Amino acid sequence: MAHEAAISEISALIGNRLATSKADKDQHGQNETYYPVTPPDAVAYPETTEEIAAIVRICNRHKCPIVAYGAASSLEGQHLATEGGISLDLNRMNQVLAVNAEDLNVVVQPGITRKGLNEELRATGLFFSVDPGADASIGGMTATRASGTTAVRYGTMRENVLALEAVMADGSIIRTGSQARKSSTGYDLTHLLVGSEGTLGIITEITLRLHGIPESISAATCRFPSVEDAVNCVILTIQSGLPMARIELLDEMMVKGFKAYSKADLPEVPHLFLEFHGSPSTVAEQTEAFGEIAREFGAEGWETASSTEERNALWAMRHNSHYASAALGEGGHIWPTDVCVPISQLAEAVLQAQQDAVRLGLTSTIVGHVGDGNFHAGLSVDPNNPEEMARAEHFTKALAETALRLGGTISGEHGIGLGKQGMMEAEHGTALPFMRAIKTAFDPNNILNPGKMLPPEIANAEANAA
Amino acid sequence: MAHEAAISEISALIGNRLATSKADKDQHGQNETYYPVTPPDAVAYPETTEEIAAIVRICNRHKCPIVAYGAASSLEGQHLATEGGISLDLNRMNQVLAVNAEDLNVVVQPGITRKGLNEELRATGLFFSVDPGADASIGGMTATRASGTTAVRYGTMRENVLALEAVMADGSIIRTGSQARKSSTGYDLTHLLVGSEGTLGIITEITLRLHGIPESISAATCRFPSVEDAVNCVILTIQSGLPMARIELLDEMMVKGFKAYSKADLPEVPHLFLEFHGSPSTVAEQTEAFGEIAREFGAEGWETASSTEERNALWAMRHNSHYASAALGEGGHIWPTDVCVPISQLAEAVLQAQQDAVRLGLTSTIVGHVGDGNFHAGLSVDPNNPEEMARAEHFTKALAETALRLGGTISGEHGIGLGKQGMMEAEHGTALPFMRAIKTAFDPNNILNPGKMLPPEIANAEANAA
Repeated sequence: MAHEAAISEISALIGNRLATSKADKDQHGQNETYYPVTPPDAVAYPETTEEIAAIVRICNRHKCPIVAYGAASSLEGQHLATEGGISLDLNRMNQVLAVNAEDLNVVVQPGITRKGLNEELRATGLFFSVDPGADASIGGMTATRASGTTAVRYGTMRENVLALEAVMADGSIIRTGSQARKSSTGYDLTHLLVGSEGTLGIITEITLRLHGIPESISAATCRFPSVEDAVNCVILTIQSGLPMARIELLDEMMVKGFKAYSKADLPEVPHLFLEFHGSPSTVAEQTEAFGEIAREFGAEGWETASSTEERNALWAMRHNSHYASAALGEGGHIWPTDVCVPISQLAEAVLQAQQDAVRLGLTSTIVGHVGDGNFHAGLSVDPNNPEEMARAEHFTKALAETALRLGGTISGEHGIGLGKQGMMEAEHGTALPFMRAIKTAFDPNNILNPGKMLPPEIANAEANAA
Repeated sequence: MAHEAAISEISALIGNRLATSKADKDQHGQNETYYPVTPPDAVAYPETTEEIAAIVRICNRHKCPIVAYGAASSLEGQHLATEGGISLDLNRMNQVLAVNAEDLNVVVQPGITRKGLNEELRATGLFFSVDPGADASIGGMTATRASGTTAVRYGTMRENVLALEAVMADGSIIRTGSQARKSSTGYDLTHLLVGSEGTLGIITEITLRLHGIPESISAATCRFPSVEDAVNCVILTIQSGLPMARIELLDEMMVKGFKAYSKADLPEVPHLFLEFHGSPSTVAEQTEAFGEIAREFGAEGWETASSTEERNALWAMRHNSHYASAALGEGGHIWPTDVCVPISQLAEAVLQAQQDAVRLGLTSTIVGHVGDGNFHAGLSVDPNNPEEMARAEHFTKALAETALRLGGTISGEHGIGLGKQGMMEAEHGTALPFMRAIKTAFDPNNILNPGKMLPPEIANAEANAA
């Protein structure tokens, strides 16, 4: 067995909470997209930060990889132990540690999910806003710098994480940030850990900003003659400064997927799904202002979802876009993509993506948090069809190049993980060595989620020797 | 002359834009607070990023310190060349490079000031929101993670910097972030550089978020029976989720200072200065909602400043608080302090600060961006009175301890610089070695603003040898 010494020491530490059964390992090797099942050598179920620190110290001594595991909903394989070692399952650390309602924040353990957290907050009149489609764990959302439908109004994890506790590669436990809303003291380690995909430290506690549940919430849908009209409506809405709570694009293929998967009763044309938050009068003002803009771009079929049940059904349908996209293809797997561009470039990026999909003969939906300039082309693929997989890879590269050409980024919210390392150099260029320098300084033995995010260095030494 | 070799090479590079006259050096050794004049060995006036890269490469080769210099308005001596070397004056790099109005951002050089930038934006209907009291340079505001009166609504530099270009210690030029509103690709070097006080890189270009000028703006002042009442009004306002654009506390001493310095016609009791942004109807809604809360806490004397001129006069007075505080004392210098606490702890922190000032016999104003939980006690000091300076230091330490005890931070917006290094360990503890590791990895020769922010390491080796 690989990493036997480390596994045996961890077993001595936490007893039967270190599992090596095939079932445990296989479960922790699954993923939501197209990566093959990749089991770790063992699964550890820690219950405290101190236990995690002790486990990480053991791993560091034995140079044994360790990968945090939450809801396994990441879309670029971030939670897979591709170099073996320990899958650190944080689901037993799923408590709300403190609800500081008067300071509009909450302190949680990493294993709690966003829906679980909002259940716990129900009586407070406050909510946690970030909502990727999946019921992801807060630890995973922090590590991936997740966002979702409400980021346009309330920000992503970048804006909603106030403070962290983390276990570093040497086993030290650090705290970053504070309960204060701002600070100018030292390097911003909070933001360095947010989005680091488990490669710099294991996040063990998160302080999150909360928001008051708006007095009035109204959701709506409307349809457009073309994707271009829908996107231009979004651009003008954002440029007008309308504080949209949600503004989501679905192209005709995505609507087709919803009809197949969620039995949605929608015409197969591009739609926007919308939500307005505020006082009754401001919601009315916003709705009217949006309606005026939408009519300029030929919007029709305005449907309001005012009751909580109708709204929940609408967003549940939207959040199932991953599975609805899969329902369209033969292969049953989704190759997700995820670019974000300046809002002014959104129409060009979306239209280019649609054309590329047609050109490459791929079945693709377009769905997106378009108020942020962020959208996904969801490609239906069969991982057993290498020729189709090659076309999907080609599409992804072309889409990334489009995003960079238009001043954007190769990932708005899914992160890099395994799938996008090949494009890190194109996006970051001369900044990449400074990312590597941080990784080396923080984790000299490369035990924390090795093989993720940072592309392998071109082996200059070998090249020179050859 | 110290660092002669480096200075001579830089002189060969940029000719008479390398100055060594006493006048140049003395000017660059000035500061707004109590630090002694600290001239550099030479002043360089670069005009391009490439020139800065060449200068930094020379400095790195000769281990010559280099300190960025903008408006010199920093309050903790961040711009002083305390270890000699080069003061890098960025005032010739003060251009707006691109106004991307449709994407609500602007790209600027570091030497432009916030007022200069807003002048340039005047025709666009957009504004840059962050406003520390001084007309600081954008480069300096980025490096110090500055905020100010509008942060409660629009965020600090942390939320308003989208992307950067920077020259690193090895002379490489990196770009961080993009024009997209969000990204999940790699370590967040943008936020690492924001607030790094020139110790990790020289910021040479900044992409800033812009906001639409609100349709309606209304400012107001009101007075309270006590500081406690005023603060409790703020706490309830923030907890109610009212989107205040500005909410500033002034205690009775601060009002006295304004009367002395700005000939303000205000009764000498605690005040709040307020601003509301939105549509005419939302501003009316917010004003009414705030008024109801304020009356609960005994607010009186509501005065509205609706015209642009009245509003400008009000905020100009507020922004002169530094000089107004100085006007109260004999010494003419201000020892600034700057803590930030969770909003629920604000009353306790402010009252403790007032008591400490009385106990230590110090003349102190209290003024603050209280919607963020951030406030300043401005101590009038005479730098030639060592006994008074010792009491000021004692006060500052006690205030920092109060902030940390209440879950806050030792600096909300001024930063660490020279003045607060002694409290970094108390705030960051086990995280401090990771900050040092970043500094060492990025700047192994310690040329970038050496002696700032990170406290000197206790010389273990020496201690062991002794």
